[in-house]
This record gives sequence, C-alpha cells and structure tokens, in this order.
Amino acid sequence: MPYDILITNSTILPLADNSISHIDCGYLAIKDDQIAAVGAMSELPADTEATITIDGSGTLTMPGLVNTHNHAAMTLFRGLADDLPLMEWLNNHIFPAEAKFVNHEMVYWCSKLASIEMIRSGTTCVADGYFHEDAAAEAFRDAGIRAVAAQGVVDFPAPGVPDPAGNIAAVEQFIDNWQGKNPLITPAIFCHAPYTCSPETLQKGKELARQRKVPFFIHLAETEFEVQESIKQHGATPTRHLHQLGVLDHNTIAAHCVWLNDEDQQLLADSGTKVASCPGSNMKLASGIAPLAGLAARGVTLSLGTDGCASNNNLDLFEEMDLAGKLQKAKHLDPTLLPAEKILRMATSGGAETLGLEDQIGSLTPGRKADCIILDLKQANLTPFYGAGLLPSAASGHNVLTTIINGQIVMRDRKIVHFNEAETLSRVRELAHKVRV
Amino acid sequence: MPYDILITNSTILPLADNSISHIDCGYLAIKDDQIAAVGAMSELPADTEATITIDGSGTLTMPGLVNTHNHAAMTLFRGLADDLPLMEWLNNHIFPAEAKFVNHEMVYWCSKLASIEMIRSGTTCVADGYFHEDAAAEAFRDAGIRAVAAQGVVDFPAPGVPDPAGNIAAVEQFIDNWQGKNPLITPAIFCHAPYTCSPETLQKGKELARQRKVPFFIHLAETEFEVQESIKQHGATPTRHLHQLGVLDHNTIAAHCVWLNDEDQQLLADSGTKVASCPGSNMKLASGIAPLAGLAARGVTLSLGTDGCASNNNLDLFEEMDLAGKLQKAKHLDPTLLPAEKILRMATSGGAETLGLEDQIGSLTPGRKADCIILDLKQANLTPFYGAGLLPSAASGHNVLTTIINGQIVMRDRKIVHFNEAETLSRVRELAHKVRV
Repeated sequence: MPYDILITNSTILPLADNSISHIDCGYLAIKDDQIAAVGAMSELPADTEATITIDGSGTLTMPGLVNTHNHAAMTLFRGLADDLPLMEWLNNHIFPAEAKFVNHEMVYWCSKLASIEMIRSGTTCVADGYFHEDAAAEAFRDAGIRAVAAQGVVDFPAPGVPDPAGNIAAVEQFIDNWQGKNPLITPAIFCHAPYTCSPETLQKGKELARQRKVPFFIHLAETEFEVQESIKQHGATPTRHLHQLGVLDHNTIAAHCVWLNDEDQQLLADSGTKVASCPGSNMKLASGIAPLAGLAARGVTLSLGTDGCASNNNLDLFEEMDLAGKLQKAKHLDPTLLPAEKILRMATSGGAETLGLEDQIGSLTPGRKADCIILDLKQANLTPFYGAGLLPSAASGHNVLTTIINGQIVMRDRKIVHFNEAETLSRVRELAHKVRV
Repeated sequence: MPYDILITNSTILPLADNSISHIDCGYLAIKDDQIAAVGAMSELPADTEATITIDGSGTLTMPGLVNTHNHAAMTLFRGLADDLPLMEWLNNHIFPAEAKFVNHEMVYWCSKLASIEMIRSGTTCVADGYFHEDAAAEAFRDAGIRAVAAQGVVDFPAPGVPDPAGNIAAVEQFIDNWQGKNPLITPAIFCHAPYTCSPETLQKGKELARQRKVPFFIHLAETEFEVQESIKQHGATPTRHLHQLGVLDHNTIAAHCVWLNDEDQQLLADSGTKVASCPGSNMKLASGIAPLAGLAARGVTLSLGTDGCASNNNLDLFEEMDLAGKLQKAKHLDPTLLPAEKILRMATSGGAETLGLEDQIGSLTPGRKADCIILDLKQANLTPFYGAGLLPSAASGHNVLTTIINGQIVMRDRKIVHFNEAETLSRVRELAHKVRV
C-alpha cells in the first residue's frame, strides 16, 4: 500500500525526545492523517511508493509549531495603535474597536487571516480564545489548521453574549457544537482573567471543563498592577486566588505568568498547571519578563504563544522562540539559560503537552498526527548549518516552504494550496478600511 | 532625459524627517546613482519615461536599512557554539576557530554570504570591522552593498597582522587601498576595545582617523566585567578612560554601550560620540540591556547593528528594530519608550548620521544616493496596513522584494541579480565542512 506523502533527502529533526540531533539525509512518510515512518534514506526500501513525493534536498523537516496563546481575530487591529500606555491602548483603542467591529463575520475572516500567517510561519496548531468562537473554529477548520478553540467568558456584556448571566451556557453550547465533530478542532473554555471573572464564574467554568473534559484557559499575572489589585481585593496573588478556588490543575493553561513570586511558581508546579508564555506581547505591552528559568527549574510545562496580533504585531512563533531565549539570557546575564533545545521543545512537544495533545502531536513519531513543516536550508540566513541549535535565533517563519497538517498539504513551496488566500486578504482589507475611517 | 529606474504605485515612506507619514500611492525616480524625484502618482507627469519601470502596486518603498555594527565574515561561525558562558564561547570556540580559519579567502566568501543575507533583509549599508578587511571590502564591492569597512586593530598577533607593532601601519595601508577608489566603500579604523588596545594604540589610531578623515570604531562597555576591570586597571570606566585619552568625538562610533553610568552617557552626548546598539547580540551573549532610553533623552545619535553573526545568529536588521523597541519597554515597564518612529530612524537616518553619511543616505530625498528597498505589503504578516508604525514589530527582512543600492538593482523579486548567489553559498558550505570536521 503506497504512502500518501513521502518527503525524501531532507534533514529530519524528529524532536522526539529532549535531543535536537537530526538525521542528515532522511525521509518522512505519511499515510492518511498519520506519520507512518521516519528514518535515514539509506534505510528506505527501494520499492517504496507514494502518491505525492516531495524532494526535500536542501531542506529540514521538523514538527509543526504549536502556538498556545492567541486571539486570532485580532489581526484586524495589527498596528492600529502602538507604543501607548496599556490602559490608554485598551480603553481608547482596542476595547472601542472590539465593541464596534467584532461580530461573526469579522471573527471568521480575521481568524482566517491569522491562520494564513501561522501556516506561512510554520505553526500547525493554535490555541485560540475569543468571542464568537464558533466563527473562529469555522475559520481554523476551513484553513486546515489544528486548533484548540476556546469560547471566552467575562462577567460583563461581550460580543455575542450580551447578558453575562449566560456566559457559561454559551460555552456549553459551543462545546456541543464542536466536540468530536472535526478532527482538527478541540473546543475549550477561556475564562478571561481573575479580574474579569468572579470566583463563582471561575468555579463554574472549571466545573464545566471537568465535566466535559475540555481544556480550561485563563490569563494570569500578566501585569504588576493585576497582582497588586488582587492582593487588595482577595488578600492573595492572582495565582494563590485561583489555587484557593480550586481552579489550578493539569488541565488548566495559564497565559503570560509574568508576575509570579516563589510560592506562585510552586503552586503552578505542584498543581500541574501549564504555562503559555508570550514574550513578544509581554515586551510590546511592557508587562515585564516572565520567570521562565525559575518555572523550568521547578518542572512546569512551558510553551510559547504569540498572544493576539495587536499585542505583538505578528504571529511568527520562530520570533517568539528567539525572544524567549534571548530575553532570559539578557535579564539574568546568563547565556546558558533556556538553550536552543529547551526553546525548540517549548514550541513543539511542550506546546502539545500544554494543550493535552501530547499523544497526538509535537514530534515526528510514527503513529502521531502528520503535522510537520519543511524549512529551506538553502537560504543565506540558515547557511552554514551545523545543527538545529541555530533555528531559534537564525530561522524566520518565512524560511518555511511547506506546511502539512493532519496529513494534508496546506502550503507547498510557499503557496497556500488548501483555500483561497487572496479572498481572505481582500476581505480583511475591506474590514480594515472601515476601522481606519 | 528618461530616468534609469521608476517605481510606480507604491506606498512611499520617505523618512525624510522625524515623521513616519507615507504617500499612499506614490512614485520614486532614480537617475544614475541618485534619487531624482519622489511624490504622489497624481503628480507624476504623464510623459515620464524610464529605462526600467517597477510596478510597485501592493508594495512599500522606504530607505534601505543601515547596519552600523557587523563582523561580516563571522557568518562562518553561525550556530557553531551557542548558549555558552561568554569566556568559554570566546576562548574554547570562537578564538580557536578564528585562529585556524580566518584568512583572505574566508573573509571574502563569508563577508559575501553576509552581504547576501543583508541584501535579502533590506540592509543597503553596513559598517564592518574585522581582520583581512581588504577581503571584506572586496566582497562588499562585488556584492554591490555600500560599506564602511574598518580594519581591525589589537595589541596582539592577529590574522594578517602577525606583529602588533605594525597594526596602525596596516590600517594606513588599508586606507590607501580604498579611500576614494570605489563609490560604495569608505575605509575606516576599528580599534577593537579599550581592553585589547593600549592607551598609546588608541591615541595613535584616533590620530590616524583624524589625519585621514575616516571613522573611528570601538567596542565600548559591552559587559559589566569590562567596566569592573577598567576601573581596577585605569581607575575609570571604559567610557571615561576613552574620554581622558581624547578618543571620544563626533567621528567615533562606539558599539554596544550596555554598561554606562550617568556620567558615561553624558560624556558620549557632550562629545558627539555615536552609538551602534546591538540588542540581539547583547541578549544572546547575556551582556545586558543598553540604556537606549537614557541615551536618546540626552540627544545621543543612536543606530542599530547586528554584531557578527555568531553573536546573534542572523543579520536581519528588521529583527534588531523589533528587539530594540520591545526590550526597552520590557526593561522599564513603559510601552511608550522608543516608539516606532524612533526605531525606524535608528535603522535609517540614525545609521547614516552614525557613519557620517547623513548627506548621502538614510532617507528618500532627491539628491541623495539611491539606496532603497521595496517591501511586499500583500503578505499576511503586513495585512492590514494602517501605517508604517507596524514595521518594526510586524515586518521581517523576508518581506523585502527588491533592494536597490547606489542606483543598482541588487535584488529584484527576491532574486539576487547582481552576482552569483549560489557560488557564494557553495563556497561557504565548503569552508564550514572543514570547520565542523
């Protein structure tokens, strides 16, 4: 029985364990939605057949990247208002723009634009949280990108959920709509933050996540201000507050985690809470520098997210890899912190573990889903190539030639082949024209 | 008389003053090596003729970027040894590799590889410092990139200068070889650092720079250790030490400047010394975070450099723009620091001023040299486009379609048209094969 896709003569980087060793001249075979075989070309049987053979000479094949924190639809607000104090940015620019422009149509097209940018830069799985999340899930499905899509919950009127009393019910409906319906889409719940959700809402949300066995996301300890306010209001840091409410467990994904004291870090470690770190967003919004070295030392599962586009201005996870490593080194004046192998793990298997998909994605292992990317090693910025350690600091998402998700070729030789890219760009430009006016 | 090159229907970003306002649908005309005219398409006379017309629909045309600190030949050591303590990295990896592999041939081909990477990522002018700098200057000339090429000076045996007693004479010879000989190449002197050059060497070097009217480069205050050692040895910070030697003036370019106290910053401001900041290198090598906000407030001319490739692992100045701004915001918890317009200026007109080329390059102004780049605004990562403020945080060097230097098209639609790119990549891979073995 022939393979569906066979990549030949490529440098193969399985990232199947903590090592970043590669196979110099190897192959990767895909059958249906799974990785069927990986090995050296010298071990590939001569009579191997495949429906599609990709000559991987001068390329590197690795697992697709996992972006564990995004608000995909916010591509519409890329560069709309930058370099501003956080509250001015939120209250005078982002919140008014969201109130005016966020609807089902906007979320669909702008999440699809985000999918294009992610597919083009090597992300094959994204964790998203927003309102009108049905539209986001439709966009990810249509774009062919794997997604953990989480419906947002806040205790005030939100796009699509005018009465906050119905916010948990809206998530239940969303889970009903998507659970088990599409192999690419995993539904989830996103309780926005400890300061926008009451203790009751947080506990109800977590209870729902447990009942329905879906991931529970929350923004946590993003700014110093948030921590100070939490101590005033609850007599506890946001992390301890969540711990006291019973919200922290191995199925909770906390985004940002910039302001954590030692006890907070230990609470995350002891509870098995996963962390989605967003260095680009934390830098752009001047939130601070997350204690990744400390969390890593405590054994917390770490992953990388871009955050929404407006908080970053791009969705390239290769850039987040570069930022994450360099930022820890610069902060602690220690060049050995977060070495390349740890960074590569955060962006692949660490992301998979964070989303509870560790048995499905995150490495080039036979039996796992066929989510992989092919990089162009013939480019000047990846020459010479002594080993995969250079990827976080040298590679760019633009070095990705081909993106395969769930066994489907979504982009080949930098052409999106799975859907109409131009239509999406055009629809978002029309929406942006209304925003600017 | 027809123009040589006419770019039409492009978004034009002149950066001719401190503004980042753009012309929505404009043109840029080039005659010989100069910008002849810039304006709105509506003002372009109907009978305008040009030898080459580039349809700039869906693009943005801006000044080429100026990289004010590089050791181009070090592309050979990209990713050779990362995530190591500085002294182990230098003494056990970089210095031995340099001692073994740096020669005229290596510097030529590896500087040419660096030129490819820079041209591909929008850099049109580079300040370089290394040994065998004749070979580097030949590479820049052949690649068609503008360069201020500085011959290195240290008080110990160096590649090409086995007897340090001849180090200043070697620079004189280098200046003789290049001054006034090629429109792209400006020769200069690079006294490596206050800790590798004696006071006498520094003063001799500066005297030569003054006599021959060439720029004087030096690494300054890169690490905390350097400052502590200088205080022990000279009773002064490295900056004050240079001040006392009379080395600081408007024609001195100090690279890094990470560890500066208030007095040091004021000495740089009062003397007119220019600063080449290298955030990517300072992060990767864990040197620290430069006080750019303080220097900017004192009116010091700031610019951006990648440093050598091994200290960064890439030469994309768009990434340095992103790092420089985000890093100051994260360090000082202030999102208003180094806004996009200041960052864009650092990478263009600030770079030109730093190198003493402010009358020739740095903005799209008629009469200046035709150094410009054309970016693809049709890419997802630059959609939507509300204004040029998004460039530092959203754009990548890979968004550059076309690079024009001194009126010559060096890259068009991402194809290097000025020389044989494949030959260079191949020659460097051969050299790298020897390094790895």
